[in-house]
Amino acid sequence: MKYFIIGAAGFVGSRLADRLLANKHQVTGYDNLSTGKMEFLRRAMRSKKFLFAEGDIHDRKLLTHTMKHCDFVFHLAANADVRDGLKHPGKDLKQNVVSTYYILEAMRENNIKRIAFSSTGSVYGNQTIYPTPENAPFPIQTSLYGASKIAAEGLIQAYCEGFGMTSYIFRFVSLLGKRYTHGHVKDFVEKLLEDPKSLKILGSGKKIKSYLNVSDCIDGMLLAIDKANEKINIFNLGIDDYCTARQSADWIAGYMNLNPKFIYEEGDSWVGDDNIYLDCTKMHNLGWKPKYTIKESVIETTQYLTESLVDISKWIAV
Amino acid sequence: MKYFIIGAAGFVGSRLADRLLANKHQVTGYDNLSTGKMEFLRRAMRSKKFLFAEGDIHDRKLLTHTMKHCDFVFHLAANADVRDGLKHPGKDLKQNVVSTYYILEAMRENNIKRIAFSSTGSVYGNQTIYPTPENAPFPIQTSLYGASKIAAEGLIQAYCEGFGMTSYIFRFVSLLGKRYTHGHVKDFVEKLLEDPKSLKILGSGKKIKSYLNVSDCIDGMLLAIDKANEKINIFNLGIDDYCTARQSADWIAGYMNLNPKFIYEEGDSWVGDDNIYLDCTKMHNLGWKPKYTIKESVIETTQYLTESLVDISKWIAV
Repeated sequence: MKYFIIGAAGFVGSRLADRLLANKHQVTGYDNLSTGKMEFLRRAMRSKKFLFAEGDIHDRKLLTHTMKHCDFVFHLAANADVRDGLKHPGKDLKQNVVSTYYILEAMRENNIKRIAFSSTGSVYGNQTIYPTPENAPFPIQTSLYGASKIAAEGLIQAYCEGFGMTSYIFRFVSLLGKRYTHGHVKDFVEKLLEDPKSLKILGSGKKIKSYLNVSDCIDGMLLAIDKANEKINIFNLGIDDYCTARQSADWIAGYMNLNPKFIYEEGDSWVGDDNIYLDCTKMHNLGWKPKYTIKESVIETTQYLTESLVDISKWIAV
Repeated sequence: MKYFIIGAAGFVGSRLADRLLANKHQVTGYDNLSTGKMEFLRRAMRSKKFLFAEGDIHDRKLLTHTMKHCDFVFHLAANADVRDGLKHPGKDLKQNVVSTYYILEAMRENNIKRIAFSSTGSVYGNQTIYPTPENAPFPIQTSLYGASKIAAEGLIQAYCEGFGMTSYIFRFVSLLGKRYTHGHVKDFVEKLLEDPKSLKILGSGKKIKSYLNVSDCIDGMLLAIDKANEKINIFNLGIDDYCTARQSADWIAGYMNLNPKFIYEEGDSWVGDDNIYLDCTKMHNLGWKPKYTIKESVIETTQYLTESLVDISKWIAV
């Protein structure tokens, strides 16, 4: 199989590239390196079965040309900055919705019929059902990020209906693990490196969140693509557990041998910061089970971050 | 109140303008006249309380400028061509999603906090629950039109969360009545005027559809805007009844005093042609009830079409 990974230099994309190459597949990576890092692709670049193109999805000519002869597209590129969405309200629309349209059109042009897409548990908005199943009640969006992801899901679904494509839509919880680049674990680690005595936590620290290890996530995606055979396959990818920001702060500080005072800022942490805890029965029914607990993933990520923040060369060794 | 109607020269927009003007409100209409007709605004144009600007939503400067000093925005403009979506897959994205973003930004610029939006029962995709309530299971889109409308809904919702706006999202069934411009009733009438002896019906003619009179629809919208007071208010607007294309063809032919032979084309009528029959309990609970039956609306529309197709000056008299 010849895979095309958009967002190949990112956290998930680069880990997926390594995995597919280890499984003897051919992989072409596409990334504009706006948040992706070439260091993450150092292992992949050593493989003869790997090609990389630095390009933007909005460069439709390059995208279409590079995708040629591939069998399967992983669309993992996104503006994943939920928190700052309101500072630049057009960014999610441009980078997550319009780009998805460009990708689908490039697939049509190249007669490529299968796509996997990284959506998010944020599409469920402020739900009342936890853990939230894939067929939860019709959602109401709370963030521009969630809105852009449900829009992209809808586009992909309509292309499947209209142009005979097959899709695998994965609604992720937050992912952790080596090559993790942004999110609250990074914020906490950085703050603690700067001031080991106190840690500010946005909001009450009581919102519940689920965290999946990127390695389990990739296992899950590859299994679903292998086993599921609907026209449109939608799966939650999470873990049967959750924690609060407060708990994860305890684990992080513990690993760093620190005992900071936690300071809570008043009110909600940020608009769109919903509880996220997904029902993954559909994935379990395919035979998938995550290997890492949330605590193990938080600690692995803390270890990775403390090492790579001190020594940037460690980025490439993972 | 000072209302801003986008899509003011359309079927719903022009009828709404007349109603708001009759209720002594100030109204500014905005329309690019791509499908809207100035004839529909002839009555409104006679009012001193009505202003009209011919402009495209993508002309952001004009849009923002024209919207100034308004209190409430009705966003009724759309590419409403569900059937031919696949012929130009970028059109729904541009005209229904990106434009909604431009409108929301123009509102932000002008500090306008309230918006009503014409969404569609198509956002429910191929549902299993009929009549379909607003909190039906998480939908899977079947048309680019539905995908664009759920995307626009999500954007509006995220703006409400993030920028303190209030929204009224109405999921319409198909609308009928005077100034109706496109859809299957028009197709049937035109075909019968051309060939009174036979009528081709796409698909089996057995899909169920609900039709609401535009006058009832406007009653419903105005009532909901008056009575509902959530941050995000979502209402189905339909009728507690449905018919098949076959039934409506019978009524149309009956009104035209014809007895054509019906010819069914094989297979589904078109991609995204789902059954649509909405549960409107939420609207009923506000005290709203449609006055027209489906049959009455089909016949009113047929009368309007046969008269205006014969004599274009009738367009302005309604």
